[in-house]
Amino acid sequence: MRRKLAILGATGSVGKSTLDLIERNPERFEVVAVTAATNAEALADIARRTGARLAVVSDERRLSDLQELLVGSNCRAEAGDEALIEAAAGEAELVIAAIVGCAGLKPVMAAVEAGRTVALANKEALVTAGALMTEAAVRSGATLLPIDSEHNAIFQCLACSRNDDIARIILTASGGPFRTASAEMMRSATPAEAVAHPNWSMGAKISVDSATMMNKGLELIEAHHLFGVPSKRIEIVIHPQSVVHSLVEFVDGSVLAQLGSPDMRIPIAYALAWPERIPTPAQRLDLASIARLEFEEPDLTRFPALRIAREALEAGGSAPVILNAANEAAVSRFLTGSIAFTDIPRLVERALEESVLAAPGSIAEVLEIDRFTRQRVDAVMQAV
Amino acid sequence: MRRKLAILGATGSVGKSTLDLIERNPERFEVVAVTAATNAEALADIARRTGARLAVVSDERRLSDLQELLVGSNCRAEAGDEALIEAAAGEAELVIAAIVGCAGLKPVMAAVEAGRTVALANKEALVTAGALMTEAAVRSGATLLPIDSEHNAIFQCLACSRNDDIARIILTASGGPFRTASAEMMRSATPAEAVAHPNWSMGAKISVDSATMMNKGLELIEAHHLFGVPSKRIEIVIHPQSVVHSLVEFVDGSVLAQLGSPDMRIPIAYALAWPERIPTPAQRLDLASIARLEFEEPDLTRFPALRIAREALEAGGSAPVILNAANEAAVSRFLTGSIAFTDIPRLVERALEESVLAAPGSIAEVLEIDRFTRQRVDAVMQAV
Repeated sequence: MRRKLAILGATGSVGKSTLDLIERNPERFEVVAVTAATNAEALADIARRTGARLAVVSDERRLSDLQELLVGSNCRAEAGDEALIEAAAGEAELVIAAIVGCAGLKPVMAAVEAGRTVALANKEALVTAGALMTEAAVRSGATLLPIDSEHNAIFQCLACSRNDDIARIILTASGGPFRTASAEMMRSATPAEAVAHPNWSMGAKISVDSATMMNKGLELIEAHHLFGVPSKRIEIVIHPQSVVHSLVEFVDGSVLAQLGSPDMRIPIAYALAWPERIPTPAQRLDLASIARLEFEEPDLTRFPALRIAREALEAGGSAPVILNAANEAAVSRFLTGSIAFTDIPRLVERALEESVLAAPGSIAEVLEIDRFTRQRVDAVMQAV
Repeated sequence: MRRKLAILGATGSVGKSTLDLIERNPERFEVVAVTAATNAEALADIARRTGARLAVVSDERRLSDLQELLVGSNCRAEAGDEALIEAAAGEAELVIAAIVGCAGLKPVMAAVEAGRTVALANKEALVTAGALMTEAAVRSGATLLPIDSEHNAIFQCLACSRNDDIARIILTASGGPFRTASAEMMRSATPAEAVAHPNWSMGAKISVDSATMMNKGLELIEAHHLFGVPSKRIEIVIHPQSVVHSLVEFVDGSVLAQLGSPDMRIPIAYALAWPERIPTPAQRLDLASIARLEFEEPDLTRFPALRIAREALEAGGSAPVILNAANEAAVSRFLTGSIAFTDIPRLVERALEESVLAAPGSIAEVLEIDRFTRQRVDAVMQAV
């Protein structure tokens, strides 16, 4: 029996890695639905290659192109939010949630509410709607499998452990391109310097998050929701080689760690095959040739985003939504050259100070707080 | 319901650590039987402290002392092999097998044949009788839980994985006191130099095994039997800090590692509480203060024991029994100053070359091959 899959965000990098693994294991998986934001051409190609029966482009203006591209196939072309939800909560047993940003919230929630196994590559789902998602999963019996390397590592370390046995979760962070930079250098950092990640190749926004270490702050919030562990028992350690993807310390003092080469196909394969495993072509780890793994405390002075994110998690309510939205707004301003690198956490902190809002009770409210926060950042910027 | 425990070898270091953990968790464990080789005084003390109902001293000459020491207690005093077997295969559900050397073989086998959960600290059980033990465990439904840090690490990494998912087992080795020594220095190494282990405090024999790296060769054989993985998929990597206790690579390229401070209470606690965990007072791992974990390939030229042990495992039959017995005989000669450090592997290899014997079909045959090998080593030594 092949496992039925929906790939939300099939044309992005997680989508591509997923397709690579599925094509290597055709006896295990059957792709039933694929979606993309705007790239109808790539989506139609994927739909034909996989034999998917439903292809959804978010941007309704691309629907006629998609329909044309799929003429003669067995794949139905659709567009818009309702169709995305159909793809997420339809016949698929396993949903790969790789839509970037808040656009992923509604389809992810639909898959969770439908009790599906959801492999999460979308950070916003847990950062902005963690409590809503995990509560819905408990109600529906959905399983959340994290795909990003840190949470996937923790998930692997926990395996069949009891939650009561966890003493600490230790998230590793590469430290990004400014790990050893002086505060002065960071003040004048250019976008080109900030996106030069030492170990992983990623998009510009997430690369800047790695440079500010806001990415690790967001992961802290995700880890809290995924594993039900309070902020004070989640630590962050700098590990420049990015070989150890994260660790779990248990009450007996034993620590389990997951390691691997920086290839997203490893965590994606784990989510695809869980609780089993499937082979991947990822490079094998050779510890003797790596020779050295280093660890150090993070510097909260040069990387205030770590402190700000932890405070947002502990404040609760709408704070994590505001944190995420203000950070996205600030990073895009940094990338276009309108603010300095060190203004990013400053702007985020200001947005958090000024906006005290109740915890969102629905995805619609999350999206509203998100929009409101972006407007506030606009207003702050114009006032400067 | 408290778990009923027998502690075979209660007066040694594993026994002491076990008692420490049991006394910290009195609501979980009930000690029903304890044994010791000769130390009737310490054994009687342990029997009184734990409330054990059976105390067995191997050395029958110490029985009358033990009886006297236990007068007025509810504990029966016994001595000899039959009583050891009663302690191992009696009412205990979990047997801590911490008797040193081949003296542990019969009681361990009795516990395995009786279908008990056996926490193994006795290396000889798997090195010399691995196939016999694991076949008996399959027949009886016994569970073997490894206590030594490397195999316990692997057991933790495997957790609820399928055997088919294992790609490689990676045993870590500190490299011992001669990791960076020249071949010349090793030729003239004294017993005092050889027993100076960098990370763990251990007895003289096992410290010499660490210096020759024969300990890692013996662990390779144990790992093969415990986890059903062939020699070619078990690797050894030098890791001087002894923080990573071993690793497992899975078919997807993911690697799990177990880490911890060098405190035997961590693996013992895991075996005691498995599949749950109990708190221990072991020092918590602080990666940032450890700062650096290093890995390198082992040098098979300076450490021929690694090659010899692997060859013995691959040769099968009685070779691992001969390896173990010849090594013990050679190490004791080195400790008394009658041979050089580098003669240890030479003597072992010679014993293996000269003795081709069928695989032992019983523990009695294992013990016979063991005795025969020691006599051969004597003969070789007298001929020199």
